[in-house]
Amino acid sequence: MKYSDSDSLLIWQEKTRTDLVETPVFSLVQSLRRSSFGQERTYYVMEAPDWVNLIALTRDSSGRDCFVMVRQFRHGSNCLSLEFPGGVVDAGETPGQAALRELREETGYQVRQGASRGAMEFLGSVNPNPALMNNRCHTFFAPAVEKVAEPAPESDEHLEVCLVPLEELLAGERAEEFDHAMMHVALGFLLGRLGTPDISRLTNR
Amino acid sequence: MKYSDSDSLLIWQEKTRTDLVETPVFSLVQSLRRSSFGQERTYYVMEAPDWVNLIALTRDSSGRDCFVMVRQFRHGSNCLSLEFPGGVVDAGETPGQAALRELREETGYQVRQGASRGAMEFLGSVNPNPALMNNRCHTFFAPAVEKVAEPAPESDEHLEVCLVPLEELLAGERAEEFDHAMMHVALGFLLGRLGTPDISRLTNR
Repeated sequence: MKYSDSDSLLIWQEKTRTDLVETPVFSLVQSLRRSSFGQERTYYVMEAPDWVNLIALTRDSSGRDCFVMVRQFRHGSNCLSLEFPGGVVDAGETPGQAALRELREETGYQVRQGASRGAMEFLGSVNPNPALMNNRCHTFFAPAVEKVAEPAPESDEHLEVCLVPLEELLAGERAEEFDHAMMHVALGFLLGRLGTPDISRLTNR
Repeated sequence: MKYSDSDSLLIWQEKTRTDLVETPVFSLVQSLRRSSFGQERTYYVMEAPDWVNLIALTRDSSGRDCFVMVRQFRHGSNCLSLEFPGGVVDAGETPGQAALRELREETGYQVRQGASRGAMEFLGSVNPNPALMNNRCHTFFAPAVEKVAEPAPESDEHLEVCLVPLEELLAGERAEEFDHAMMHVALGFLLGRLGTPDISRLTNR
């Protein structure tokens, strides 16, 4: 990434780094950095592989259009969380491959054969938290999936697969459990495909 | 939070916890947990105070409606990041007080006196990452702010205040730097106030 000359004033350079903790999902690194003004400070960075989320649509038994979602206990929040399927991009995988693998493992669904719409589309990426993390989270969209197997999650992943009607999620009826920032980002990417909203009502004019 | 009987199968109970690393912005805790099926596993949780973001609107010198934003170097991503003002809720502060304080410190702006719209509104909250973190991030909206002072950030915060036209941000023209997941969440809350979008075009019907 290139910056203009004035941007360089904002940038800090790393002087030394120390590995503090290695966990199965991230490494915590201590980084001594020097600003363009000569200050030295210690910062903490979580290094992690990229993550993926997949928004997948299907119909429930009554014909309603639904998001294929999973409810699971999350150890950070200590609460149940309603989420789009997703997870870590494994070594040797593309983000798209990871998204389809996680869909299959966590829900038993896969892209519907012969779907009239595209099988899967890339919606966008963000950094989950640029202040603390070095990785990216990629969001995909599969407009038509179908159940082909029972879920096969990892042994410590206790998941409940939920078909959540689109209207129900968008109306906020599941807001207590739909609490994961990355899922809001994913939904935002999807809604952004519907066009730029009329923002004139937000302003003071 | 209460769960139904079947939900209890998904929940893990903490057996023991160990503080691993204490930093100025979070603590890393190792937690040994036991599932309802009798499994025991070690998880890692970042404990942090709540965060706030404030979406503030003003007009630039040519009369365009703009977001008041800050560009800053972020040590996790090692990149410049374009963000709404925000930060940590300090001890003794409400989230709303923290939002106004961060706006003033980072940009020198405050809510415009005599604004015809409400001074500041709460838009919503999420957990930044329920898998890893225990805190919440709250988003506020100030539809009319004005510059009253020079920015007064902390000594190691090198910030550039930017007035970004609404259309420019929404059209994705600043996408390379508008990369912070929590800022996408904040913008999603704001756009959600414009009503539920017509999602029929997303489905396979």
